[in-house]
Amino acid sequence: MPNPTKIDLITIGDELLMGIRENKHLFWIGEELSRYGLDIQRNLVVRDSADEIRRHFSDSWLHSDIVITTGGLGPTCDDLTRETIAQALALELEFVPEIKATITERFKQSGRPFTSNNLKQCYRPRGAETLSNPCGTAPGIYLQKQDKILIMLPGPATELEPMWHNEVLPHLQSRGLLDNRSSYLQIRTSGIGESTVEATLQPIFAQNPDLSIAFCAHQNIVDLRLSSSTLSPSQIQAIGEECRQVLGIHFLSYGHSSLAEVVLHQLRALNQTLSLAESCTGGLLSDTLTNVPRASEVFAGGVVCYSDAAKIKTLGVSQKLLEQHGAVSAETAQALAKGAAERFATDYALSITGFAGPSGGDHLPAGTVYIGCHSPTGTLSRQDTYRGDRLAVKARAVTTALDWLRRELNSDYKF
Amino acid sequence: MPNPTKIDLITIGDELLMGIRENKHLFWIGEELSRYGLDIQRNLVVRDSADEIRRHFSDSWLHSDIVITTGGLGPTCDDLTRETIAQALALELEFVPEIKATITERFKQSGRPFTSNNLKQCYRPRGAETLSNPCGTAPGIYLQKQDKILIMLPGPATELEPMWHNEVLPHLQSRGLLDNRSSYLQIRTSGIGESTVEATLQPIFAQNPDLSIAFCAHQNIVDLRLSSSTLSPSQIQAIGEECRQVLGIHFLSYGHSSLAEVVLHQLRALNQTLSLAESCTGGLLSDTLTNVPRASEVFAGGVVCYSDAAKIKTLGVSQKLLEQHGAVSAETAQALAKGAAERFATDYALSITGFAGPSGGDHLPAGTVYIGCHSPTGTLSRQDTYRGDRLAVKARAVTTALDWLRRELNSDYKF
Repeated sequence: MPNPTKIDLITIGDELLMGIRENKHLFWIGEELSRYGLDIQRNLVVRDSADEIRRHFSDSWLHSDIVITTGGLGPTCDDLTRETIAQALALELEFVPEIKATITERFKQSGRPFTSNNLKQCYRPRGAETLSNPCGTAPGIYLQKQDKILIMLPGPATELEPMWHNEVLPHLQSRGLLDNRSSYLQIRTSGIGESTVEATLQPIFAQNPDLSIAFCAHQNIVDLRLSSSTLSPSQIQAIGEECRQVLGIHFLSYGHSSLAEVVLHQLRALNQTLSLAESCTGGLLSDTLTNVPRASEVFAGGVVCYSDAAKIKTLGVSQKLLEQHGAVSAETAQALAKGAAERFATDYALSITGFAGPSGGDHLPAGTVYIGCHSPTGTLSRQDTYRGDRLAVKARAVTTALDWLRRELNSDYKF
Repeated sequence: MPNPTKIDLITIGDELLMGIRENKHLFWIGEELSRYGLDIQRNLVVRDSADEIRRHFSDSWLHSDIVITTGGLGPTCDDLTRETIAQALALELEFVPEIKATITERFKQSGRPFTSNNLKQCYRPRGAETLSNPCGTAPGIYLQKQDKILIMLPGPATELEPMWHNEVLPHLQSRGLLDNRSSYLQIRTSGIGESTVEATLQPIFAQNPDLSIAFCAHQNIVDLRLSSSTLSPSQIQAIGEECRQVLGIHFLSYGHSSLAEVVLHQLRALNQTLSLAESCTGGLLSDTLTNVPRASEVFAGGVVCYSDAAKIKTLGVSQKLLEQHGAVSAETAQALAKGAAERFATDYALSITGFAGPSGGDHLPAGTVYIGCHSPTGTLSRQDTYRGDRLAVKARAVTTALDWLRRELNSDYKF
């Protein structure tokens, strides 16, 4: 099979195009394949229509080495994938008694009858193999033809994902298609824009014309994937190391570590603890940290203090300070951070207070946010104004706060 | 323009095919269009490659009435959409001084320099209009040509979504392409499985053979979309009302209201307040509630009490109770809810304590969760065990807690 292997993914289902269900298979299969040095060349999302399936499958079969389809293998009348593709390949559908036995047994166990519409699931294109489905009735189909591979998978993720691991990967492995060595180096930066990342690293890229670079900007995070069809992994690693040096404090991690993971890792390495006081972010920062396993080792807890009364009662902020400076102010941000550190007895504390929107304050627009950072050396605050809706403001405030703490911790932390 | 209007969506970006970023635009735009009686015919997800973009765009332009592209409008070297499509349409790219002025002003405000790679964003195919982008640098592009429409949108959702509402919909509206009568009635249920919803409503569906029903199950939520090519909107509404009666307490809302929105609405209508004590969900419940505008009117705040010390110090749970029953117990769940209601002086309080995983407790497996609910009439708790990873357990616990409170509030609340 040629290198690079061309893989097309065809996801089939009206519900994917009508905003009823998300097309999660693209991301999931894309990530799975990328672990083994394979990429999806393109993804076609098409309707439950025989004409559409036929037209797109034929084009994919012509232009790819491997075609993967999802959906349309079930028992109902809108499940057309098996029949349409067999026809497009001019392959007869054969009845397979073993499939019927398996489905019958499955129905027996759950006390349901084998209805006649299930019969169509017992057919398989001539020359194909069955990919068994312990989590549902529709078996998958694996076909090798003219040095090309066709893999047909069921639509539900709960059936597709186990089938992928138990059946598809072993088939691809046995054909020598999986490269177990990761095929790219990912560099993640934090707190710096995409165009600045590119401008900063341009001299390195200019010296390495054989390097392919893909950028992906998330919330305050920019990912760069370095790959090459000619450079060796150690050569790519050496270029990555150059990039890391030039990026300095903006470098977050190699690979996929999140900002929260990096900060929690820093705290653990320094044997320091953290607590939070969140007003306008309403628990998002706390939620982000506690999505990481073992967060509890360094994260003591936090207070979501939406009301002034909560700020006073749960974190000891003085009523006078709130009256004098307002709940959204540098002074309150600092008092909240200090209050959290005291209440939870932690070394560090972050606080966030602001107007997430849609409405702002008397003199401050929606999007105005103050962040407080308490550390063993003192308490600081910063002010930012974010654009976007309520959720965007919350998300920006959280990444800004975490990145600030990361930079704080970095000054006494050596990687 | 023919009816039905054929719409192709081309989402561009290597990161979508490599498992780096989910292709969320398909779902989002699909749902938006379906509100106006329009459907996406197909979605092509292609690489940041001029050849791929050209080939797929040309095919789409030939087979559709409207082509929407997302991504590849940014400043970096892998952003090729603008140039490639202009070339495919044989349209010259013109420098537009107004775009440069807008981008320069934007950079000025955020204190960043206008780097030379931003210049390419200032070009537009001849005859096209600019779709302004207040949330980012890359403007969108709208072009009408040979009775076809091309809409080019930036990749980041935070830029695409406002641009869609502020710029794209008005353009489509002015061309008479939007059917403002919603084309379906959505009924949302909560706390009941998809097959039970179907079984419960089967008698109604059997009496209305002209009705089309689409189901979509989310986290503890089942959406039903009722539509028909023959029934009038008021006939569909009448059937929907029958469904609501039969569903009873399981009925959540018509339309798209979330569980959090419904609960906050109930609290507001009853003039009651809420506070939280979260252990294993780590702020997710609080975050979910505060994503809703005006949450602050009824939501006072919450404590994320990860450590035992935090449970004792911030919510007054007794050390003896924790020692006797453990942090993950019915007794602790009740004490946490009561503590939150007292500390934040609210009428209602929810608490969640459990093992989100990956590890469980001494005698309890990961996924074990206790929820406490404090109301003016007393404090109760319930125990559940959820399957899935840490994030799945957190999400399930949050929807279970909210749905419990919804049912509690419903007994004295009339819709």
